Amino acid sequence: MVIGLGPGREEEMTPRARQALARAEVIVGYRTYIDLIASLVAGREVVVTGMTGEVARCREAVARAAAGARVAVISSGDPGVYGMAGLILEILAGHPRGKEIAVSIIPGVTAATAAAATLGAPLMHDFAVISLSDRLTPWEVIARRLEFAAAADFVLVLYNPRSHGRPDHLHRARDIILQYRQPSTPVGVVRNAGREGEEAWVRDLATFLELPVDMVSTVIIGNSQTRVQDGRLVTPRGYRL
Amino acid sequence: MVIGLGPGREEEMTPRARQALARAEVIVGYRTYIDLIASLVAGREVVVTGMTGEVARCREAVARAAAGARVAVISSGDPGVYGMAGLILEILAGHPRGKEIAVSIIPGVTAATAAAATLGAPLMHDFAVISLSDRLTPWEVIARRLEFAAAADFVLVLYNPRSHGRPDHLHRARDIILQYRQPSTPVGVVRNAGREGEEAWVRDLATFLELPVDMVSTVIIGNSQTRVQDGRLVTPRGYRL
Repeated sequence: MVIGLGPGREEEMTPRARQALARAEVIVGYRTYIDLIASLVAGREVVVTGMTGEVARCREAVARAAAGARVAVISSGDPGVYGMAGLILEILAGHPRGKEIAVSIIPGVTAATAAAATLGAPLMHDFAVISLSDRLTPWEVIARRLEFAAAADFVLVLYNPRSHGRPDHLHRARDIILQYRQPSTPVGVVRNAGREGEEAWVRDLATFLELPVDMVSTVIIGNSQTRVQDGRLVTPRGYRL
Repeated sequence: MVIGLGPGREEEMTPRARQALARAEVIVGYRTYIDLIASLVAGREVVVTGMTGEVARCREAVARAAAGARVAVISSGDPGVYGMAGLILEILAGHPRGKEIAVSIIPGVTAATAAAATLGAPLMHDFAVISLSDRLTPWEVIARRLEFAAAADFVLVLYNPRSHGRPDHLHRARDIILQYRQPSTPVGVVRNAGREGEEAWVRDLATFLELPVDMVSTVIIGNSQTRVQDGRLVTPRGYRL
């Protein structure tokens, strides 16, 4: 099973995810995510690795499942959005006993919509989700997607907006977007969306780089119609009021 | 409160959404969504309108909240993705007592990730969410977004892909995308994702129009790297295996 925990608070985790976790014999995940659900994994075997150990972690999960264990691989948010679902399926496809292993993927509330709910309603119209991490994707591909999404007036949701390894990606992304959007375009940033320690800010394209955006932040950049109302981001769907 | 029910099955609704529903005195929503949660609304006042009565429904919700009732407006999936969250905030902003009314938006599992989980892991890379409904958006805007998202190799998620009022939009969308993607590009369709009566198919751009795509379907079109493995859609994130 590949389980989406949702943003982090237990009250945002679906009953289906919770039940699947309760049935698992072995729980595999990144340390930070295991810690989010410490009370739910008590008494079970836990396999943890660092953030960049995804391949080793998923291989171990598949090996344990092939040996007969009921294994749960956990991702925060939704496991199918930059999470572990794809890697598990890829490893299964290359495993001699992969076809015998039943796998279910259990969705969760993803950071895009958790952050949007905190900010107001910025995703009421078409939106594009882009990761700024170039660990697995060339920057040229990311830059092209930013440019085309900005040009077509999508609301933009940026995952992995900044880390120690890529301190200037967000700045470069902002400069690309500014070719197509006004500096006054509303921008929302949420750190730890839907988790303990959640913080949120509403700024604009001209000023949001001053905010403490980091790896656990989600950035939402409005389209040409997005506005700020009583401190909240709202992208009108187009109803006549 | 604006509450996201998730895809429809109770086991996919977050505890936070369920608790908010339990506390509400008045529940406002489209008939189909009220029916999805019939057992959870028993004993409370329910305000229903048809699918196109969104503005009247939300005005009624705000009027009832202004009169002191604890009101829950429900949307299936996530209420911030083509749901009621934005309209509620817009109506509140124009209401004389809008600033006095506390509003919380409770996220849910959206159709994009519920459908993705059923199909495999198609959303492991950057994706764009586009509604094909031109009820509130000119077709030219939709077509431009389809074209730019296809050109920049986003995975595409299509909401509202087909209805009686727009039987040929999906065909036109497919033709736009075919300018940039191979006819063999994998396409997944899920009807009633995460609900009773769920059905799913995996085809390709050349053939998926044969499927019974309708208003309650979600269509996911792979990027240039998406492949079919053991009947599931997988978009590689880029890990070396």
